[in-house]
Amino acid sequence: MKEIGLGLLGFGMVGAGVVRGLQANGELIGSRLGVRPVLRRIADLDIESDRGVTVDPAILTTDANALIDDPAVEVVIELVGGTGIAKAFVLRALAQGKPVVTANKALLADHGAEIFALAREKQTDIYFGASVGGGIPIIRALREGLLANRIQSIRGILNGTCNYILTEMERAGVPFNTCLADAQALGFAEAEPSLDIDGFDTAHKAVLLASLAYGGTVAMESVYVEGIRNLSSLDIGYARDLGYKVKLLAVIRSDDGAVEIRVHPSLVPAKSMLGSVHGVFNAVLVNGDLTGDTLYYGRGAGADPTASTVLGDVADVVRNLASAAAHRIPAIPDSGDVIRIRPMQDVTTRYYLRLSLKDEPGVLGAITAILGKHRISLSSALQKDEPENSYVPVVFVTHEAREAEVDAALQEIAALDCVACAPVRLRIEG
Amino acid sequence: MKEIGLGLLGFGMVGAGVVRGLQANGELIGSRLGVRPVLRRIADLDIESDRGVTVDPAILTTDANALIDDPAVEVVIELVGGTGIAKAFVLRALAQGKPVVTANKALLADHGAEIFALAREKQTDIYFGASVGGGIPIIRALREGLLANRIQSIRGILNGTCNYILTEMERAGVPFNTCLADAQALGFAEAEPSLDIDGFDTAHKAVLLASLAYGGTVAMESVYVEGIRNLSSLDIGYARDLGYKVKLLAVIRSDDGAVEIRVHPSLVPAKSMLGSVHGVFNAVLVNGDLTGDTLYYGRGAGADPTASTVLGDVADVVRNLASAAAHRIPAIPDSGDVIRIRPMQDVTTRYYLRLSLKDEPGVLGAITAILGKHRISLSSALQKDEPENSYVPVVFVTHEAREAEVDAALQEIAALDCVACAPVRLRIEG
Repeated sequence: MKEIGLGLLGFGMVGAGVVRGLQANGELIGSRLGVRPVLRRIADLDIESDRGVTVDPAILTTDANALIDDPAVEVVIELVGGTGIAKAFVLRALAQGKPVVTANKALLADHGAEIFALAREKQTDIYFGASVGGGIPIIRALREGLLANRIQSIRGILNGTCNYILTEMERAGVPFNTCLADAQALGFAEAEPSLDIDGFDTAHKAVLLASLAYGGTVAMESVYVEGIRNLSSLDIGYARDLGYKVKLLAVIRSDDGAVEIRVHPSLVPAKSMLGSVHGVFNAVLVNGDLTGDTLYYGRGAGADPTASTVLGDVADVVRNLASAAAHRIPAIPDSGDVIRIRPMQDVTTRYYLRLSLKDEPGVLGAITAILGKHRISLSSALQKDEPENSYVPVVFVTHEAREAEVDAALQEIAALDCVACAPVRLRIEG
Repeated sequence: MKEIGLGLLGFGMVGAGVVRGLQANGELIGSRLGVRPVLRRIADLDIESDRGVTVDPAILTTDANALIDDPAVEVVIELVGGTGIAKAFVLRALAQGKPVVTANKALLADHGAEIFALAREKQTDIYFGASVGGGIPIIRALREGLLANRIQSIRGILNGTCNYILTEMERAGVPFNTCLADAQALGFAEAEPSLDIDGFDTAHKAVLLASLAYGGTVAMESVYVEGIRNLSSLDIGYARDLGYKVKLLAVIRSDDGAVEIRVHPSLVPAKSMLGSVHGVFNAVLVNGDLTGDTLYYGRGAGADPTASTVLGDVADVVRNLASAAAHRIPAIPDSGDVIRIRPMQDVTTRYYLRLSLKDEPGVLGAITAILGKHRISLSSALQKDEPENSYVPVVFVTHEAREAEVDAALQEIAALDCVACAPVRLRIEG
């Protein structure tokens, strides 16, 4: 059987997963492809540590550039991570016309335009399926399966760390910090968790999904980002009482030629598909004009699931090489346009608002008057008999309202004497 | 922009959806592909009826063979349905080396081996994404995204009619026949519903999924098929009390080189992803050795969702033609093997058993003695205080047991004097 040479940059957890996957299923992959992918070289600064897989020491090198330049390496797998040296490696491979498979969402979110342009110029492939959703073939679905659709919205649970923490906060009713510490102890959260819990990892992925859906480039700065650090389990409990789960969602919606891209905690119906995604799992709900809602669910991280998608991409690249069809699918659809972003202030959605109100006559009237002035109408309200220092928590669920109006109303409400502490505002999706 | 000519065989509901999709999104599809797909001819025996879409009468013909042979038609879309004349059309197109896109699961389940072999011989494409799961790109996921995985199991809700009926039976607690009549009135079930409710449509799809997962050909006769016609809403209610939903599942599992393929009503945990699939929606849960569980959800039927997948396939074919990479992906992985099927008698799973027992001493002992003799152990039992004619319904949930043993035990149990009417046996998945 014809062989095709792979070079692996980065021998960390996912790199070891790719090696393990090739060792376990390489023959199967070969029989499905008609071409056998063979790992020819692995480069990492550390080639001494035990990764739990046995590899021929002769293929290990600390010289990434030599790996890229090696004629025996026909496909470069970039699993170094980060936006520094990884960028140089990817550009070096593409400049030689070598196809690249990467899982590096940060690199593509920050430097996608440059990288994709070089791939196009050199008519070679860059595949990045594992950069969003780990083991879930969501990028493939968007780029190929749903190609005939206008994408109307994408709503994704894209960070397993956050979903694990939120699931535990709801299940055990314990505070964020406790759940974060537990997640860290279990290896579900990094020691430095900000990238995950403050929503930036999700935002990187949202940028890629929006680019795929709308065919332009999106700057990270156009994404509204709010993480889960300040979420109270009180609100998660109230949300549950109202029939919702709280999830960190990436929301991408297109309307009137403008696209909104936002990442924030959201209430989703508990019985919906997104509401049924627990623990470290991810899911992406895509609404296309022809297909309606479709959802893709699976493990969003982990060595083996990520390796599954990396190797799925390798298979595509191998098929393209075998049939001389490189750059058969452009990395990002060639719209050439810059996506027009809807400012967060113009977004309309439904809201969950929690206020701490003095339990005295006229207070509710004052609140509803302010909401009404800003054209915010209520679909329900929930008063909790759990006074804290003579303040009572009151939860309002609104109909669709404009973010700017809600901002203004909350500012006015916060200034009232009858209101203790800052109002809590969560957005409701679906 | 370069154009590529499409010919549409069959101008029914899905055919009209394809025409509508091309009219609405043809320009978008063209910009994503770099090639514009143009509908050159439509063939149907009836070219008079109004399908709610406007087409140039000059492209309509009653002569399907002329359409296939027309040099202006470069891709043939087969939406005639059935296994008779549709087979001749597909073979005629492939014989000329023309790629075919079809949604015809019955045709491929019955004649896939012959059709796929001709496509391979002629090195042309046959795509059939819409034959399973309607608007859900599940075939693409199995064939491409999960390619690096050994598929360990597939569990699918693949028939929207059945899922709608089961959802309604649970929601309203009404009998099967009432729900079927409602579904028929709403257009969710055919006037002749057997193909759907007796499980054959699901079995056709299971055959295709098993072929894709294991790379051989599967005969329809190797599939164990049991429909939902005899399901009682009593059991759906008891299942709910036990924390389960009842779904018509296709179950495909591989173990020790043997594959089991079975279609029957199954209990799935209510809070699982499959348990959260309501109404006409479909979903497929795939377990791969690398990726673990992934799930794909969406509308399993309907003109627009099906057209979405048909046009996604057309896009693939167009890309293959544009890059001279026809037959880039074989229709079915080339294992050449015939899949070894595990006989239903050797399947092991957990069971839900409902018996109508005389409410008198010693009865439960007699039952459990029979179960024990057949190595069937119980995880729980539920006795309902709802005697009917002095018989009491008792529900047993078993641990893993072998189908043959359960058959034998139920036969013995049914023969006891203390047992009224035939025992009900449902299988539990997950």
